[in-house]
Amino acid sequence: MAALTRADLEARDAQDPLAPFRERFDLPEGVIYLDGNSLGALPKATVERIHALVTREWGQDLIRSWNLHGWIDLPQRVGDKIARLIGAEPGEVIVCDSTSANLFKVLAAALRLCPGRHVILSDTGNFPTDLYMAQGLVDLLSHQYELRLVDERDVLDAIDEDVAVVMLTQVNYRTGYLHDMATITRAAHERGALVIWDLAHSAGALPVDLNGCHVDFAVGCGYKYLNGGPGAPAFVFVARRWQEQALSPLWGWMGHAEPFALELEYRPADGVRRMLCGTPPILSMAALEVGVDMLLEADIQAVRRKSVALGQLFIQLAEQELAPFGFELASPRDPERRGSQVSLRHPEGYPIVQALISRGIIGDFRAPDILRFGFAPLYVRYVDVWDTVAALRNIMETGAWDRPAFRVRGKVT
Amino acid sequence: MAALTRADLEARDAQDPLAPFRERFDLPEGVIYLDGNSLGALPKATVERIHALVTREWGQDLIRSWNLHGWIDLPQRVGDKIARLIGAEPGEVIVCDSTSANLFKVLAAALRLCPGRHVILSDTGNFPTDLYMAQGLVDLLSHQYELRLVDERDVLDAIDEDVAVVMLTQVNYRTGYLHDMATITRAAHERGALVIWDLAHSAGALPVDLNGCHVDFAVGCGYKYLNGGPGAPAFVFVARRWQEQALSPLWGWMGHAEPFALELEYRPADGVRRMLCGTPPILSMAALEVGVDMLLEADIQAVRRKSVALGQLFIQLAEQELAPFGFELASPRDPERRGSQVSLRHPEGYPIVQALISRGIIGDFRAPDILRFGFAPLYVRYVDVWDTVAALRNIMETGAWDRPAFRVRGKVT
Repeated sequence: MAALTRADLEARDAQDPLAPFRERFDLPEGVIYLDGNSLGALPKATVERIHALVTREWGQDLIRSWNLHGWIDLPQRVGDKIARLIGAEPGEVIVCDSTSANLFKVLAAALRLCPGRHVILSDTGNFPTDLYMAQGLVDLLSHQYELRLVDERDVLDAIDEDVAVVMLTQVNYRTGYLHDMATITRAAHERGALVIWDLAHSAGALPVDLNGCHVDFAVGCGYKYLNGGPGAPAFVFVARRWQEQALSPLWGWMGHAEPFALELEYRPADGVRRMLCGTPPILSMAALEVGVDMLLEADIQAVRRKSVALGQLFIQLAEQELAPFGFELASPRDPERRGSQVSLRHPEGYPIVQALISRGIIGDFRAPDILRFGFAPLYVRYVDVWDTVAALRNIMETGAWDRPAFRVRGKVT
Repeated sequence: MAALTRADLEARDAQDPLAPFRERFDLPEGVIYLDGNSLGALPKATVERIHALVTREWGQDLIRSWNLHGWIDLPQRVGDKIARLIGAEPGEVIVCDSTSANLFKVLAAALRLCPGRHVILSDTGNFPTDLYMAQGLVDLLSHQYELRLVDERDVLDAIDEDVAVVMLTQVNYRTGYLHDMATITRAAHERGALVIWDLAHSAGALPVDLNGCHVDFAVGCGYKYLNGGPGAPAFVFVARRWQEQALSPLWGWMGHAEPFALELEYRPADGVRRMLCGTPPILSMAALEVGVDMLLEADIQAVRRKSVALGQLFIQLAEQELAPFGFELASPRDPERRGSQVSLRHPEGYPIVQALISRGIIGDFRAPDILRFGFAPLYVRYVDVWDTVAALRNIMETGAWDRPAFRVRGKVT
């Protein structure tokens, strides 16, 4: 492979300050895992933590664990930890429910803060569940509001005086396109709108500076780069300045000022705790805490540097080695505009991804033609990038992708 | 203790057909656990299941587990199992989110099915989060609707032509009062209203016959008598006849007709699956499945018989032994009108419960004066009831409850 050799990349791995983190994940033998943008890998420490939680806390201390082991404080405690990864203050982030549900809460809250405006602005590259939740809220509110979708490159121009809320996912789940949070947020505020950022593909993958950008609301996902486990609870951010006014429409008892007073009337808790709704899933939340703790040990700037380096390396090698085979780069070439993944386009993307998976290289596919490769810097190595491109080349050269078995569609890829 | 002796109760335990289930729970030594109505005990099988889920499914098979290990079907699969416990058909129940969130979904759906009516009827004994969720929805919908609360004994009379939805928890969380689901549901339908039943304290504790009673919607909790673990996901029931019309307002991607088509427009899934919202918390849901599986092995009629017998025994012994100490029965004496708990009232209830807990007998307290004792028939023995009453008598006789340490209020009791 041209001037660069695999040995060069082994040397880069040897010098990588983040390399020691890889040993702290329980990765399967012989697998290159490039799908941490969909489900993060298992931290070894999670195994012991969950076992202790189940056997000691639930099994032995039972109901008393809500106080004794701080279950009741878990949403706030893990929220405060996530806050440090996304440029928020303690008391501005809380963990609960799903990203979808949290988006519903802050969108309803934000719309009420912008009376007289009726447009929710988003882009066609947003993850569909965010759009669906907005559509559902619009429908529930008898179409007083309207969801307006534009191309992701046209968002800035589309913020007019009808826009109440600009609701975007910072990193496009298919292409990795990274929005300019600071510029868009500033423009929204100048034009009288509020912003909601979905950090699903950002938190734990790149430095986010919510308060530096004066973001109003944010939500995000626990099971991708935070390595919180399948379906880990999500988080929600409410900027301190909105906490008194912003009201979730999901008035659950955990968001009550005094949940255990068991009053008949709802009184919202102070601060971000009012975003809580029902009783939190403690097993899933405890697993998330382990993942977050590990990320807090890493320097997020170093995480980003390695993420960019892995992505640039992948693009360089892919263009060099895969040129004859009809791939196109679907992600921005400029790392300033790209999250922690690189996507390629190929009309036979689906069977090609399946062929890769059969060789133990796990990326994923998004219709109609996107091959996604996520680079989680805590456990992906430079040699993994080399080996992936080499495997892709071999699969294309030998036609190994062109088998009926690789064309069978599963429900999740 | 009068004619009845502890040995008599040992004999009853020896003959109890449900007694073998107790060995399948990992209960702490020397503890009598009468709080399974708040957090069910740990099934031993859960420990191994969660360990395998974490290490093998998440750790080794990673993203592939959504198909390989059926994670994607878990909400429906566990829902179908719960259906068998509550008189529902396969495809009428699904597991997701919290009881609170699920109540919001079906309440919004039900209100749309009753145009021209504006009252949500509930009772003052309902668990507060249900009332709060209704208040939040009313508030979101600009007070087009009104939540009307009556005493639990006055529900039948209060169903008039303004009532759109009767929304009740079948078993009162404080007193154990058991509503007559069949009669109330019939009356509601005769008067043109729909019903939503919250089965938080019913599912797994007594036979529920949703379809036999022609119930429209129901929700329930996974972490009480289903032994699903702290904050286990909840379930939601939508009667088959409403499934095409009933729409959750939380349009998450998991409730989309084709979640992985990732379309820009929401199209609700057929059937109860449209009640799904975000990505489900797999760890917590897998733990719930183990608890449900065990209940399915038990005969729910036998569960109810033992539950009633434990309750009647407790009332009998309490009246016999505790008469001089100022306790009052807070639960219905008639077992037909009582769930699987017995509550007493005492002005010093809080320190008395703390004194009991210090002796390893775990009940709980609900302000202002309720001592709750939950009888989960899979692991509570007849001798446990004897020992509890004996301990209560001793605590009262010796004044052992009257210590400053027992008056310190924790956040969860």
